[in-house]
Amino acid sequence: MDDTAPSRLITGIGELTTQDPELGTSHAAALVIEGDRIAWIGPASSAPAADASLDVHGRAVLPGWVDSHTHLVFAGDRSAEFAERMAGRPYAAGGIMTTVAATRAASEAELRAGARRLRAEAAAGGTTTIEAKTGYGLDVETEARLARVGAEVADVVTFLGAHLVPPGLDRREYLDLVTGPMLAAVAPHVHFVDVFCEAGAFDVDESREVLLAGRAAGLALTVHGNQLGESGGVRLAVELGAASVDHVNHLSAADVDALAGSGTVATILPGADLSTREALAPARLLADAGVALAIASNCNPGTSYTTSMQFCVATAVLQHRLSLEEALAAATTGGARALGLDRGPDAVGTLRVGGPADLQLLDAPSVAHIPYRPGVPLTIATWRRGVLERSPRLAPPLE
Amino acid sequence: MDDTAPSRLITGIGELTTQDPELGTSHAAALVIEGDRIAWIGPASSAPAADASLDVHGRAVLPGWVDSHTHLVFAGDRSAEFAERMAGRPYAAGGIMTTVAATRAASEAELRAGARRLRAEAAAGGTTTIEAKTGYGLDVETEARLARVGAEVADVVTFLGAHLVPPGLDRREYLDLVTGPMLAAVAPHVHFVDVFCEAGAFDVDESREVLLAGRAAGLALTVHGNQLGESGGVRLAVELGAASVDHVNHLSAADVDALAGSGTVATILPGADLSTREALAPARLLADAGVALAIASNCNPGTSYTTSMQFCVATAVLQHRLSLEEALAAATTGGARALGLDRGPDAVGTLRVGGPADLQLLDAPSVAHIPYRPGVPLTIATWRRGVLERSPRLAPPLE
Repeated sequence: MDDTAPSRLITGIGELTTQDPELGTSHAAALVIEGDRIAWIGPASSAPAADASLDVHGRAVLPGWVDSHTHLVFAGDRSAEFAERMAGRPYAAGGIMTTVAATRAASEAELRAGARRLRAEAAAGGTTTIEAKTGYGLDVETEARLARVGAEVADVVTFLGAHLVPPGLDRREYLDLVTGPMLAAVAPHVHFVDVFCEAGAFDVDESREVLLAGRAAGLALTVHGNQLGESGGVRLAVELGAASVDHVNHLSAADVDALAGSGTVATILPGADLSTREALAPARLLADAGVALAIASNCNPGTSYTTSMQFCVATAVLQHRLSLEEALAAATTGGARALGLDRGPDAVGTLRVGGPADLQLLDAPSVAHIPYRPGVPLTIATWRRGVLERSPRLAPPLE
Repeated sequence: MDDTAPSRLITGIGELTTQDPELGTSHAAALVIEGDRIAWIGPASSAPAADASLDVHGRAVLPGWVDSHTHLVFAGDRSAEFAERMAGRPYAAGGIMTTVAATRAASEAELRAGARRLRAEAAAGGTTTIEAKTGYGLDVETEARLARVGAEVADVVTFLGAHLVPPGLDRREYLDLVTGPMLAAVAPHVHFVDVFCEAGAFDVDESREVLLAGRAAGLALTVHGNQLGESGGVRLAVELGAASVDHVNHLSAADVDALAGSGTVATILPGADLSTREALAPARLLADAGVALAIASNCNPGTSYTTSMQFCVATAVLQHRLSLEEALAAATTGGARALGLDRGPDAVGTLRVGGPADLQLLDAPSVAHIPYRPGVPLTIATWRRGVLERSPRLAPPLE
């Protein structure tokens, strides 16, 4: 904590959801921010004096969202492909190349501006920690550019050179590139290695090779698995002790058992489930089996062009049939665990004294309003590391 | 048009969706507002001079939403009932009495403040015309209060004394009350009469009696029908030439045929479909049969506590499988038709020279972004009768 930073008291909190196992949820609460940390949490009636004070008049406060799966850095738009899908054409991984072409053609400044705009939009919706993947470059130069921009804009960066074999390239040569020069070029900027383990992308053996190369370069592991079929991605993620396996739409009973006995988080991506019209990930089944869950936006221009974790949480309750408590945990502590940010003094996803001041204020009395009021943008303020963030949307330069 | 009002040019419109059959959709467009009317629409390159000018830099402009079905005037919160439903308890009409009790206990000022807050929230999301129903009073005094507040806050008011027979009252006596003194008390303030024609509420014969009494008092007709089963509400609505029948989750082939051959609009309520976990209204089937559709929020504290027409339109595309064009029409001109506001110089739901200046600006290049970017609050400005409205949310009094 920074003893010289002015302290800020947030009081009149009608419902304070901490996601901390000891603090739980309290009412008529207050908290104090000093610098980038939470300095005090307790009843509003015994709040200490502070340099500045904000009465939120009974509104709800909760941790900022931890969005553990995005493809935030890209150029171009795939609304035409989206419209075709809505008219009945099924999703195929090949659409990724549309974004690859636009991304390769974009300057680093354009990519940075686009990713910053989306990050600001996410912050306006309550997100305080965000992951970003490469994977729209698929050549050494562009993947390195995406990794650099990702490291500037996001909290955690994932190398997804193994998103697809670019058409016309030899599979073996491309795998050698991904696991060799491309990995070397991105490694200074990234924390995770990822692979799209799916028919039409990479099979289990190819995926294992990519993941092990990343591990040898010091990266943690995550997998895109079982989105379009029982790809074997889940079993591979568990076999290698990956931090998470994401999508998980198509699971055998053995996949569920493997996850339940593992330390691997299953990440559901409700925006993609709706936009691809894929079978919904069986989140209720996974939760009942005791699998650790995360919910993420999967923000990307092909299959889930949303930054709204509120929308994803509401969908997970309304349609995936998670309880509110399960969905909130998945979008905070679950995401933190998927990113390896769930331990130590800088752990995110909970509100606790000494922890990062990453929190959001709702224009609602309770977190129950998140699924109860779908589509209504409830987050009216987000503090990240103690700094109040607002969207550009909040003061548009109109008239 | 008011010749003395300052003219305002909105230019740099990347995509202008007018919903007018002749004007269609154009690009690089501009429009001029004078007073409460649209005075000019055309290419940005030939826009006339105006007293003030706003360049929207390629963003999309479309008509404001016409939300033809809400229960905007109420007190209390049913988030606990919502949570129970999410945990598996099915929706039953009886939950309405929870809101009736809270509403009867509220003052007119409290009801007005709550409804105004929701109307402002709806306006921030692009809604420029809104209907509001009574139906949480169910006694003469409270129904009259709801009608008065509705007339202050909404554009169209509907009498829904026949929402439910309050427990403990004799059905016959309650019907006499609704069609007699209650109707007389609300009639000066309302435009439509409505009935919840459903098992647990009113049967077809009772519903017919209510509707005919309303018609005799000079009101237009609308019906809550076929939400929880094949209630006969659809057939009754068609029989009586009602302007709309709303919910329409459970339809026989004969119901669809009856609608297709009628002038009655079928109104789908996507928020309620998700929140009640009822079978989705078969909107695709209805559209293919040539039935006129509306999409409305059904904003109410029990089954659809959202004002977000963007959410409803996105859900109608993603899940009800309407095309974007069908969904946009249903949420603008379809709503106007359901409310009888689709004709004459004051017709709403389209943008045309001489028509009301009811429009919204998206922070997106295209209306396709509405379903493509679910959960992201895209509307950044709404003009209603030429007046720029912003949500209180846009400048929260924080720090």
